[in-house]
Formats: sequence, C-alpha cells, structure tokens
Amino acid sequence: MHDWTAEAQKVKALDATWRQKARTRLREQTRPEGSLGFLESLIERIVAIQKKEKPSLARKRILIFAADHGVAQEGVSLYPSEVTRAMVLNFLNGGATINALARHAGAEVCVIDVGVDADFESHLPLRHAKIGRGTQNFTFAPAMDSFQLNAAMRVGWDLAEQARRDGIDILALGEMGIGNTTAASCVIAALTGWPVEGLTGRGTGLDESKRLHKIQVIQKALALHQQELKGPLSILQHVGGFEIAAMTGAILAAAQRDMPVVIDGWIVSASALAAVQMNSRILDYLFFAHESEEYGHRKLLESLEVKPVLNLAMRLGEASGAALALNLLEAGVRIYNEVATFAEAGVSGRVR
Amino acid sequence: MHDWTAEAQKVKALDATWRQKARTRLREQTRPEGSLGFLESLIERIVAIQKKEKPSLARKRILIFAADHGVAQEGVSLYPSEVTRAMVLNFLNGGATINALARHAGAEVCVIDVGVDADFESHLPLRHAKIGRGTQNFTFAPAMDSFQLNAAMRVGWDLAEQARRDGIDILALGEMGIGNTTAASCVIAALTGWPVEGLTGRGTGLDESKRLHKIQVIQKALALHQQELKGPLSILQHVGGFEIAAMTGAILAAAQRDMPVVIDGWIVSASALAAVQMNSRILDYLFFAHESEEYGHRKLLESLEVKPVLNLAMRLGEASGAALALNLLEAGVRIYNEVATFAEAGVSGRVR
Repeated sequence: MHDWTAEAQKVKALDATWRQKARTRLREQTRPEGSLGFLESLIERIVAIQKKEKPSLARKRILIFAADHGVAQEGVSLYPSEVTRAMVLNFLNGGATINALARHAGAEVCVIDVGVDADFESHLPLRHAKIGRGTQNFTFAPAMDSFQLNAAMRVGWDLAEQARRDGIDILALGEMGIGNTTAASCVIAALTGWPVEGLTGRGTGLDESKRLHKIQVIQKALALHQQELKGPLSILQHVGGFEIAAMTGAILAAAQRDMPVVIDGWIVSASALAAVQMNSRILDYLFFAHESEEYGHRKLLESLEVKPVLNLAMRLGEASGAALALNLLEAGVRIYNEVATFAEAGVSGRVR
Repeated sequence: MHDWTAEAQKVKALDATWRQKARTRLREQTRPEGSLGFLESLIERIVAIQKKEKPSLARKRILIFAADHGVAQEGVSLYPSEVTRAMVLNFLNGGATINALARHAGAEVCVIDVGVDADFESHLPLRHAKIGRGTQNFTFAPAMDSFQLNAAMRVGWDLAEQARRDGIDILALGEMGIGNTTAASCVIAALTGWPVEGLTGRGTGLDESKRLHKIQVIQKALALHQQELKGPLSILQHVGGFEIAAMTGAILAAAQRDMPVVIDGWIVSASALAAVQMNSRILDYLFFAHESEEYGHRKLLESLEVKPVLNLAMRLGEASGAALALNLLEAGVRIYNEVATFAEAGVSGRVR
C-alpha cells in the first residue's frame, strides 16, 4: 500500500507572504475596508494557494466519482442501486442538474466509475476506473480490502495530478452512489466519535421511521468493525466507499500541488475530514461549498471552524453545491484582479 | 403628485397556476424531490412572475442609483460626500467591485445620477436624472419636498419600464451615496417602529462611539419629523433619500410589469419595505440577495419572512450582493430549463 500518511504530511502550510499580499491588495481597492466580508478570506486563501500576482479560476474541473454500496441492500435509500448507473449515463448525456450548473459555471465535468455495480460500454466518455462492483455490505464485512482502498485513493490522486498537468485552476469534488449518505455517516461517526443519531440524515428523502432504521444499520456497522476503526485509512476501508476514498486521494494530491478544492456536501465532507485528520494543514486548501440539509453537516463544519460559501438547504450531491460555489469563488477572484485601487481611481480614502 | 398608492395596488398576486406548473416540472426532473432546497422556491417564483414555458434570466440589468445626503454633514460616515461622485466615475470607468461582478454575471450596469452633489459632464454614459444636489439635512428639515419625492420615484419607475421595453428579464437594484445607511435606518425605523439602536449599523466601518453618534442623529431626525412620519410616501419624503425613493418607484413598476427584482442590501431593503407596505403582494416579486452586515437587516428579513439568497457578511452596497445573487438565480433557471425528467433519462423513480 502506498504511504498515504506520508503524502498527507507533505502538504505545506499556506504561504503567509502571499496571504498578506492579498490582504493588502484587497484593502487598497475602492471599497470600505472589509466590506466584502467572508468573501475576502476566500479570495485571500485562493491567492495564497496559487501564489500568483493574477490568480485565476478560469479553468474549473468538476470530478464526479460514482460507486455503489453493498449497504444499500439494507434498505437505507428510497432509490434502488440501479439509479447509480442510470444517473452516470444521465451525467454523460448532459441531462442532470450538475450538467446545467457546470455549463452555467463554465466548468468541465469529468465522471469517474470508481465502483458502480454495472458495466459501462468502453466507448462512453467516462473515466473507467472500477475497483469493484460496489463495496461489500459493511454490516457484515469490511466495505473493501486494503488493496482496494489503496487503488481507490490512487484513482482520485491520479485525477488531481492530471488536472494539475492540464492547467486546471480549481477542482470541485462531487459524487453519485445510492447508499452513500449511510457510508459517509459511518465514516464521520467513526472519525469524530459523535453519536450516530445526530449524523444520520434523510438522504434522498427518508421519512422518520426509515431514518431510524438507517441509524440502526450504521450502529450495527460501527459495532461490527469497532476494533478496526483506528485512524482515517482504516475507517475508509471498513465503513467507507470507493468514491469516498477516491475523493480523499484527490484532496491529498490537490493540496500537495497547490490546487484549491471545492468540497460539495455531506459525502465529500467525509472524504475531506479523513484528509484533514491526516494533516490539519489540508483544511486551508478546502472550500466548503454549502451547508447541506443532511443532519450533522452544520456540526461538522462548526467543529472544523469553517464557514460554508452557501446555505441553501440543498441535499442533492453530484457536486451541485460545489458548482454554485465555484461561480462565487470566481467572482471573488475577478474582483481581486479587476477592481481599481483608491489611487488609480482618484477616490478619497477614509477621513482620518 | 402621481398616485403611487394606486399604482402599488395594481400589482397582482403571483400566478398560482404557473407556480404549480413550475413545482410539477421540478419534481419530474432527475433529482430526489425537494433536493434543491431553497433554490426551488426561488425558481418557482421566477416562473410564476415571468409566466413562460422557458423562463430566462439571460438579460440582466443592474441599476445603481447614486445620490448625496444632507445628513452626511452630521459626521455619520467615514468618507466625505465627494466620494459619491468619485465612485460614480469609478463605476463608469468599469473599475469598481460591481463592474467586476457584473462582467462575471453577464449583466449590464446602468448608473443613475438621481441627486449627486456634483456636476457630471453631459457626455458621460450616465443616466442624468438629478433631482437636487443631495437631500436636505433631515435633522433640520424634510429630506425633500413632495415634488422631489414624486420626481425621484418617477426616475426609478421610468427605468423599470424602459428595462421592460428593452426585453430585460430581471432587474437588480443597488445604490451609492455617502450617508445613505443613515437615511435607510431612519426609513426602516419609521416604517417598523422598532428601536433605532438595533437598526443602526457601522456603515462603511464606524467604530462603536461613532455608531452611537449615528444613533443620536437618527433619533433627532425621527423626533423632528414625528408628526409627518405617517405611511411610506411621507416617510420617504421626510427621512429618505433620492436614491431610496427612486428604487421604490422602480420596484412598483417592475412588479406591475411582471419583472423579478433583486434587492441588494440594507439601503435597497428600505426601498423594498416601503413598497411592500404599500402592497404586500409586491414581496413575491422581490429576491433579497443577501443578509448584510448592517445591524437590523436580519431582523427585517425575518419580519418579512424572507430568506436571503446569500449570507456572506458583506456591507458594500453598489449592488454587489445583488450581482452575486443574479448568478445564482440564473443557475436555478438553467436547471429548470435544461435538466432531463426521469422519463426522458430512463432513470427509475423512488421505490414506493
């Protein structure tokens, strides 16, 4: 297995000089100091990650990792597993919500089969990187073995590296996989030690009785693997999913290569939390797109002391929140590059 | 004086049939029901306002109303009144924050001199509609007389009508005017009867002692005009501003002509509240862009039972929040138009 812990350690702290440079430039622009609020800290971080006089988010790529989950057999979703495959085809046809949002944001969409329980014809414009036909049902067995974990993380890692080579300015991560809010809840519960009740949401729209059933499924899985749930990698292996592990790999590579990463919702946050637990410096490279409707997401964001860009009570996944946030981050970068300073515009500064 | 009360009454309730049509279409698209959260209600309202099979926000116009305020003499801002003129020139040169944001959103910017205390050369690409060189200092006299109020409202009304004729799909309103958070606080305090303390913010960045001074200025004005502060029109006249009145006029015309209007921050919210008090049905035509950092904005939004699109702790004005929200609303409309239905995409619906 690749030494992912060592890779995580290689991620450096944000460049303080560039961050200060960004802060100074924002202060010199024709606006009252601090008047862009939260947007200013987002801009500062992008500048400090990219380390460029003229930062850019012109080239945006959205990676959607699709995989199936053995735990879906436990009746934790309103939709059958076949929907994962059907939605992948919908993404490829440009007919899904993320496609409309990506077109609006001017972003590329790259769909990755990292473990869908179906075959895709080889000619489809899909990244074929299947690790297995869905994970094992982790209420009975580990979701995957350590080789599969390694392979899944490698899929994400390689895609982030490729994005860097392709000149991509920012990555956005999203996912598709029936049953994956359950896996994400397991991962987050194991990583935090928080009670499962507050980390188990309605997914695609469960009613309260089905949500209670989902809680029991998660508790059963956590009890079964209790002895193994030590550290992010082991947790991803036992109660995670192929797409969740792949996204952790993508985050490690992107942060190492100075690329900002937009985190979509609940499931991508599970991947992000695993990465951040491996190296807390990684957090500065992440932009949490929105506060999802899934129970526990707010608590998770608060515990990380991060503020999401948006709060629209969305719970769709497929990078939909990330695509909306990309638009806003790019707006921030355009402000940074395009707005005149007080001196340039001949505008008086504050009365002192 | 034009009968603005009668004009306000002509605004009709949102079309329930179109709203239902929108709801149905959203439900048929390849997403779990309700998974776009708050965005869905925004889309539904746009469809119900535009009443089109294919709604569009392709043509966006941002109106920035600039005016000066006599009350600025009371030391309620960190910046001198000359900054209003200088920022108007900055807008016209494309160097301000709103210009970068408008370019990013694909929106036109139209700047209106409705009462700046400076002369602009006639060749400038500015809407010349000056009512006066700033309002009177309303701690001593009414901000304007009733003829000026009428003229200011007419400026906004005409611009909204013109936008309609030009085929504009959505209007966004913003403002520039040193001293205008003070005027807006006066208007909102008079319209709501709420205590001034909670409605007086830091504007461009006042410290607490200067904020306390601003509160005293507002209280003095409200006490002076107490007998006259009866109803929205009289309130706009006595303690408002030319840009605040103009934006109320624009809102009335836009709502009458089935055009959605994006409300920027604190000052535009004062204009909006005046319009809504004239006819509560107008509220359904308004999209509150963001929750501003100005004290009281959250309380105001809550009292209207509206949720802002964004919450970034911004406090800039000049339609900056509105421009960001335009982008998000257009994303919603693109989802509505472009996403496949379950039937079209061959995706299984929910397990029943």
